[in-house]
Amino acid sequence: MNSPWWSQPCAALDREAADAAWLRQSKLTKPPGSLGVLEDVAAQLAAWQGVERPRIERVWISVFAADHGVAAEGVSAFPQAVTGEMVRNFVGGGAAISVLARTLGARLDVVHLGTVNDPGAIPGVLRAVIAPSTANFCDAAAMTDEQLRAAMQAGAGRVHQALDEGADLFIGGEMGIANTTSAAALACALLGEMPERIAGAGTGLDDAGIARKVAVIERGLRRHADADTALEQLRRLGGFEIAALTGACIAAAQARMPVLVDGFITTAAALTAVRLNPGVRDWLLFAHRSHERGHARLLEALEARPLLDLGLRLGEGSGAAAAVPLLRLACALHAGMATFEQAGVSIADSQ
Amino acid sequence: MNSPWWSQPCAALDREAADAAWLRQSKLTKPPGSLGVLEDVAAQLAAWQGVERPRIERVWISVFAADHGVAAEGVSAFPQAVTGEMVRNFVGGGAAISVLARTLGARLDVVHLGTVNDPGAIPGVLRAVIAPSTANFCDAAAMTDEQLRAAMQAGAGRVHQALDEGADLFIGGEMGIANTTSAAALACALLGEMPERIAGAGTGLDDAGIARKVAVIERGLRRHADADTALEQLRRLGGFEIAALTGACIAAAQARMPVLVDGFITTAAALTAVRLNPGVRDWLLFAHRSHERGHARLLEALEARPLLDLGLRLGEGSGAAAAVPLLRLACALHAGMATFEQAGVSIADSQ
Repeated sequence: MNSPWWSQPCAALDREAADAAWLRQSKLTKPPGSLGVLEDVAAQLAAWQGVERPRIERVWISVFAADHGVAAEGVSAFPQAVTGEMVRNFVGGGAAISVLARTLGARLDVVHLGTVNDPGAIPGVLRAVIAPSTANFCDAAAMTDEQLRAAMQAGAGRVHQALDEGADLFIGGEMGIANTTSAAALACALLGEMPERIAGAGTGLDDAGIARKVAVIERGLRRHADADTALEQLRRLGGFEIAALTGACIAAAQARMPVLVDGFITTAAALTAVRLNPGVRDWLLFAHRSHERGHARLLEALEARPLLDLGLRLGEGSGAAAAVPLLRLACALHAGMATFEQAGVSIADSQ
Repeated sequence: MNSPWWSQPCAALDREAADAAWLRQSKLTKPPGSLGVLEDVAAQLAAWQGVERPRIERVWISVFAADHGVAAEGVSAFPQAVTGEMVRNFVGGGAAISVLARTLGARLDVVHLGTVNDPGAIPGVLRAVIAPSTANFCDAAAMTDEQLRAAMQAGAGRVHQALDEGADLFIGGEMGIANTTSAAALACALLGEMPERIAGAGTGLDDAGIARKVAVIERGLRRHADADTALEQLRRLGGFEIAALTGACIAAAQARMPVLVDGFITTAAALTAVRLNPGVRDWLLFAHRSHERGHARLLEALEARPLLDLGLRLGEGSGAAAAVPLLRLACALHAGMATFEQAGVSIADSQ
């Protein structure tokens, strides 16, 4: 049997371009290192784009919406109908990610993978319905093999579309009532972590709600304790949108497309992708530290230092979108500043 | 004797507008609080602008350049000629703040308060020369009374100009070789803090250089130990650009102009302003946590939680400029998102 597509090698970084970018940084009219992370970002983008002076012009945002069987356990502050309602809001322009995409001039791609409250065909929404919902992981595997493959493929497909349309940065977002429960369960399985250290308030649970969520995750983990690969953990505990994000991360890394990772759920998908194919890690930049409880632990496992820490916990790709201006400023500074020689500015004394 | 202009009352916040903004936030299609600091920023801007839906369109950046007598003590990695050279670079478009201002569509106002390497009249540079340099605070007071007043007035004047031109946000930046030494000395005096806890690498000192800087600051503090008011500490240990920034903060707060505070030096000026006139604090938003050692202590004294933490330590207003897109995104989200009612999205279940 051939190995599956997600095991194929990821692209290599362009270390020469990164070196050229660092050399340029050393000549710009500022004390060396004084632009901090913005210098790192410029060099990282150079390594991805294979040029000394990278640019972030066309940003692509795919938001994957899907419902979760585990919502039946009462693990969300919002009713499950919201997933389908929000699909309409995304393309209607009223959701946070809609506003952010518009403000950033980014392409917003809305992918409907299946909701119990199916909004039907909507202009601007890609219908890629797998099922109305995953199964409740307390009772069964969340997905069948076929559903898992379809979801991962759907994610990869959006990356390929983004490439075709000339995007230079991929952001994955998600919407799905109960998906912090699914992502937390998956994170616990991947990390061997206790649910009470990972499960958080999601859209707004109180302490009793979080305790109920922890108990639900514990039941799921017990039921699927024999799932001993990341792929199987994803299939049993994940969701269509989480699998799509996993597939998107892998396809992006294989195709030289950098990924700006959003919050808790997308980071759980990113960790799954890295477990399936470690070369993915090189193509991930982490946008922000979410307020959701388990995010810090996921970031630690990925050795990630996110750009922003603003207490965001919305999902939809919103935290990643909020970090896009920093990437653009990093590129503008890197390309647009004068060198000491050009500006006739004296360099540092040797100490 | 009349009290000086900087003691006149600051403007009051518009609490009703802030309440209206919070009410609107509660109706937008997202879990309450899920946009974290971006929600706080929208409400804060509402309180400043006195409207439910604030906007940040015209950003004004004044960069104040000045030289410091204490540079003679060898406390900077760069030669003193750089201050004057950078004035030319600011208007030439090659400095970091020049690139940032251009990218943000902000007005860049360059104010020359006096440098030893005087670039002369340059189109685009406001010449407001007080003296080629302050005096070395190890030997004398850095400024005379008249110089202090002139510098503070210069800062206030730029705020009034920004108001006249319709700016809705004021950023102050600075350039001046040795000015982290001056700002650190001032911070130590204001806070009663030890120099080794405040003095940092500035533009790039090694450990021996920092030790030398600490010793210089200790000499200055001993010499001026009898300076027992913030105004006198500013006069004895500060610089023309630091006094200008202090005056700008006060004038802004008096005239309903919000100030986005940059890094270590501007925060030292902001603390001085708050000590001179406590109402100033209400009009300050802190952009970033600088890599410079003493910044954290200054932020703590001001109970400030900055938006960004990117290891920046350049000055020029660059860290504040980097945070402007977040303010704009906060405004766009606040004004542009749909309400639950508009979007037909179900609200949270009562738990």
